Amino acid sequence: MNMICEPHYRAVENLIYEWARLIDENQVEAVTDLLVSDGRYTVQSKFNRDRQLPMAIIDAHSAAQLRDRIMSMRIANIYQPHHYRHIISGVQIVGQDGDVMHVRSNYLVIRTMDLDGDMKVFSTGQCQDEVVITPEGPRFKSRRFVYDSRIVETLLVIPL
Amino acid sequence: MNMICEPHYRAVENLIYEWARLIDENQVEAVTDLLVSDGRYTVQSKFNRDRQLPMAIIDAHSAAQLRDRIMSMRIANIYQPHHYRHIISGVQIVGQDGDVMHVRSNYLVIRTMDLDGDMKVFSTGQCQDEVVITPEGPRFKSRRFVYDSRIVETLLVIPL
Amino acid sequence: MNMICEPHYRAVENLIYEWARLIDENQVEAVTDLLVSDGRYTVQSKFNRDRQLPMAIIDAHSAAQLRDRIMSMRIANIYQPHHYRHIISGVQIVGQDGDVMHVRSNYLVIRTMDLDGDMKVFSTGQCQDEVVITPEGPRFKSRRFVYDSRIVETLLVIPL
Repeated sequence: MNMICEPHYRAVENLIYEWARLIDENQVEAVTDLLVSDGRYTVQSKFNRDRQLPMAIIDAHSAAQLRDRIMSMRIANIYQPHHYRHIISGVQIVGQDGDVMHVRSNYLVIRTMDLDGDMKVFSTGQCQDEVVITPEGPRFKSRRFVYDSRIVETLLVIPL
Repeated sequence: MNMICEPHYRAVENLIYEWARLIDENQVEAVTDLLVSDGRYTVQSKFNRDRQLPMAIIDAHSAAQLRDRIMSMRIANIYQPHHYRHIISGVQIVGQDGDVMHVRSNYLVIRTMDLDGDMKVFSTGQCQDEVVITPEGPRFKSRRFVYDSRIVETLLVIPL
Repeated sequence: MNMICEPHYRAVENLIYEWARLIDENQVEAVTDLLVSDGRYTVQSKFNRDRQLPMAIIDAHSAAQLRDRIMSMRIANIYQPHHYRHIISGVQIVGQDGDVMHVRSNYLVIRTMDLDGDMKVFSTGQCQDEVVITPEGPRFKSRRFVYDSRIVETLLVIPL
């Protein structure tokens, strides 16, 4: 356990909650502002992550690349309308390298289909984040969603 | 992101957690004390809320009205015994008007049937709350549960 | 609602999150260090707990006994490989006796089978913990997982 001061904890929690809320409220574009411009956003299976295998289903190397992905979701992809509900738990700052905080949290995403209201546990896993404090407040240097189950790999249109 | 001070954050979280715990511990009556006397408690679909449609499945305009509803649950309604487990996530104070704090959080309710132990994701959604600090501590001026899926509209006996 | 100071709240939350993370990251042995040596770890149904019935599916009376149980999981038990994801919510310090804090939180555990990726809501319930501050930081004097549904009693290999 660690001795990181309270204001940082609250700011880091708020950053993580903000990301989730923006997606759940269908303001997905805005999450790219929470990533530093050369930040990285990755969605990868626990199976691969545990074995240090590089394959990931999303791996954006900049905020601009993530923005492109979201634009394609808005204008190019065809999919059944649905939305997410993020449940975040256990935000912990587990280490620090210089000004980079290493943060862990658990996530659970429930997906609801707009048409028939069908609701299911869509994805669970751990967020492995690097957070820096910028003049604009805390931002993600990198965000990695490590999901537990390999069977959710279909239809990931909206980023987690 | 916002600059609301830490003690308020903790007090607001505690208020929201208290509501959930009272219901989960079958002390449902006690939640009415967490609402100011002329407060409002609403349970409404995301579909209606997003379109500013007024229809809601519960819409109590005072703590007394909510108390009546709970009394009818205790003595009048016939239903299969069950209980809830609330999982709350991402409490954020997203704005302030005078002394009213606007608060958002996500919720997930798991319902367990007492008889056969059947357990299911009963409802997910967002809480859109207005909180004021009273001499007795923080209280809800209004609580609105905005649920994600229209198929959970059957059998809402215990308030969320 | 209570007046316990903020640093204690954060330390207690961190202790509870640490337990969950250690199990989810397959460092199960390490949770025994979060229990004082003569601490107690219990997993019991809400049905029994509500009636003050003593039966529990796990009831370790010391950290050493819990360590034995985990060792048997590692070397003796035969089971289909799986892992947990803990979602913790609503940590509240609800009372204090001398230096013992009484803490409540809700938990939800999603279990994922390693082989086929099958994911399910495995257990939900309330944690009823006693926490003390030791020179090494906060530790559990007792941890009680009170689970909601009697049908999850099969196959509890990994402790909650």
